[in-house]
Amino acid sequence: MIQKLIANIQRTNAPIVVGLDPMMKFIPEHICKRAFAEFGETLEGAAEAVWQYNKAIVDEIYDLIPAVKPQIAMYEQFGIPGLQTFKRTVDYCREKGLVVIGDVKRGDIGSTSSAYAAAHLGNVQVGGSLLTPFGEDFATVNPYLGSDGVKPFLEVCKKEKKGIFILVKTSNPSSGEFQDRLIDGRPLYELVGEKVAEWADDCMGDDYSYVGAVVGATYPEMGKVLRRIMPKCYILVPGYGAQGGKAADLVHYFNEDGLGAIVNSSRGIIAAWMQEKYSSCGAENFAEASRAAVEDMITDIRQALQNR
Amino acid sequence: MIQKLIANIQRTNAPIVVGLDPMMKFIPEHICKRAFAEFGETLEGAAEAVWQYNKAIVDEIYDLIPAVKPQIAMYEQFGIPGLQTFKRTVDYCREKGLVVIGDVKRGDIGSTSSAYAAAHLGNVQVGGSLLTPFGEDFATVNPYLGSDGVKPFLEVCKKEKKGIFILVKTSNPSSGEFQDRLIDGRPLYELVGEKVAEWADDCMGDDYSYVGAVVGATYPEMGKVLRRIMPKCYILVPGYGAQGGKAADLVHYFNEDGLGAIVNSSRGIIAAWMQEKYSSCGAENFAEASRAAVEDMITDIRQALQNR
Repeated sequence: MIQKLIANIQRTNAPIVVGLDPMMKFIPEHICKRAFAEFGETLEGAAEAVWQYNKAIVDEIYDLIPAVKPQIAMYEQFGIPGLQTFKRTVDYCREKGLVVIGDVKRGDIGSTSSAYAAAHLGNVQVGGSLLTPFGEDFATVNPYLGSDGVKPFLEVCKKEKKGIFILVKTSNPSSGEFQDRLIDGRPLYELVGEKVAEWADDCMGDDYSYVGAVVGATYPEMGKVLRRIMPKCYILVPGYGAQGGKAADLVHYFNEDGLGAIVNSSRGIIAAWMQEKYSSCGAENFAEASRAAVEDMITDIRQALQNR
Repeated sequence: MIQKLIANIQRTNAPIVVGLDPMMKFIPEHICKRAFAEFGETLEGAAEAVWQYNKAIVDEIYDLIPAVKPQIAMYEQFGIPGLQTFKRTVDYCREKGLVVIGDVKRGDIGSTSSAYAAAHLGNVQVGGSLLTPFGEDFATVNPYLGSDGVKPFLEVCKKEKKGIFILVKTSNPSSGEFQDRLIDGRPLYELVGEKVAEWADDCMGDDYSYVGAVVGATYPEMGKVLRRIMPKCYILVPGYGAQGGKAADLVHYFNEDGLGAIVNSSRGIIAAWMQEKYSSCGAENFAEASRAAVEDMITDIRQALQNR
C-alpha cells in the first residue's frame, strides 16, 4: 500500500492528505436540515449529515489529492450510526482511488492488537468465511505498550500489503510531557523513532517501508532529527494550518528525493467555507471552498519544497 | 461512578472484574451453529454468537461480581455488527447493575479526545437532542499524548460522574521497552503515575478519585511503588491468571482499607469451560464453568488479602 500511496502522490504532485474529521459545527445548516428531516435529531440524523458532507467534499477534491485520513473519534462520537458513516466513507474514498489512512491510534497487548489489526487492516475468520471489518489501507498506532503491541500490526501489514503510521512525536502542545523526557540524554521520541526504524526495516516496499511515523508539524526541529533517524519511513505530518505548522518548516520532513512525507490538513480544508478567505463561496458551496483550500495548500507546499 | 464501583465491590466482597473479551475460538460450537444458521457465516453471525455467549455468561455470574470490562477490540474485529454487540453488552450489563469499564485505550489530541470522551462516557449534541453514543461507566485511556489528551476525559468525568483508568504500567512482556526507561533515574511509568495522581486529585469522589490507573499484575514490585505514588487512585489490574499474575503478588495493589484495586480476569473466566479444571461442565454448560471460575478467583484473592 505504500507503493500505491507513493504512486498517488507522484501522480497528483501533492504530498498532502485531507483529514475527514467532521464536527457538527462544520456542517452547513442546509445539510443538517435535510438529514434531520429524514432521520430526526438522532445519531442516525447526525451520521447522515456527516456522510452527505463528506461525500460532497470528496467528490469535489478527490482528483487533486492522493489520500484521506478520517479520524475515527469524530465518527465514534455518533455511536453505531457514526461508525457506519466511517465505514461508508472508507469504502467510498477507496472506490475513488484514494488511499485511506484510518486515524484510529489503536494499540494494546498482543491478542488485542491482533484484533485491532484485523479490524482495520485485515480480515476476520467467521466459520469458513474471511470477512473485512473496516478495510482501511493504513492505520495509526500508539507505541506506549511496546513491541508486542505493534508486532500484530506488522504481521497484518506484511500479509495484506497494508501500512501503519506509529505515533512518535505528536502535534499537540503537551506532547512533550512524556515524549520529550530525556533518557540517557536523549528524548523518548527519539528512542521511539529508533524502534520505528527497526520495525520499518522488517516491512520494506521498494524504497520506503510499510511502517511510517507520525511527527507533528508543530515541532520542526524535532522533525529534522527524526527524518534522519527513520530514513525509510514515510512521515505523516499533522498540525499544518489550523494548528500552526508552516510549509517552510516542513521541508525537512521530506527526503532529498522529494518523497518521505505527507502533510495533513483537516479543518483547514473541510471547514474552509467558514474562513474569511473562502467566504465568497457561501455555505451552499462549501465543497468548492474545500477545493480552493486544497489548491492553496498544494501550492504552498510545492513552493516551499522548490525553495529549499 | 467510583462510588458505585466501590459500593458494588463491598456488596459482593469481590474486588474483581470480568473481562468480556470474546474470541471465536472460545465460543462453544452449539452457539456458533445457531447464530450461523440464522445469519450465515457473516459479521452479523459472529456478532450474534458473541452476544449469546456474553449474555449466557453475564446471566450466570452477575450476582457475584461488581463489574465487567469488555475489550472493544474484540468487537471491533467484527465491524459494525460487532460494535452493535459491544453496545448491547454494555447496556445489558448496566441493566444488571454491573459497572461497565470500556477497555478502549483511546487517547488523542484535544478536540479528538473530547470526541472519544463523548463517545464512551458522555453525550453528544445533535440539533436540540443530547444523545448517548456508547455509555460505558469507565473507559481506559492511553497517556502517550500528555495532559491535553487526558483533560477532555477529566471534564466529561466531572460532568457525568464517570471515570477513567489511565495506562501506567501494562501487563505485557514488552511493556518495559518504553515504560521502564529511566528519566533522571526513575522509570517513565513512575512519572506517568505521578501525573495520574495529579489528575486524580482534581476529580475526587469520597475517598477515591474518579481517575484510576492500569498497572499489570505481572509486575508486582512496580505495583507496590505505584500504589504509594497514587494513593487515591483505584488500580485496575490486568494479567491475573492466564497471563501469569498470582493473587499473593497482588495484595500490594490494595490499600490498608482493603480497597483501591480491582483485579481483572478475561479468558480465565469466559473460557473456563475449555480448561481441564472445569471440563466436567461440558461445552453446553460453559456459563456454569465461568461461574465456578469466578468463585475460585474470588476465594483466591480473598485468601491472599486475609493472609497479608
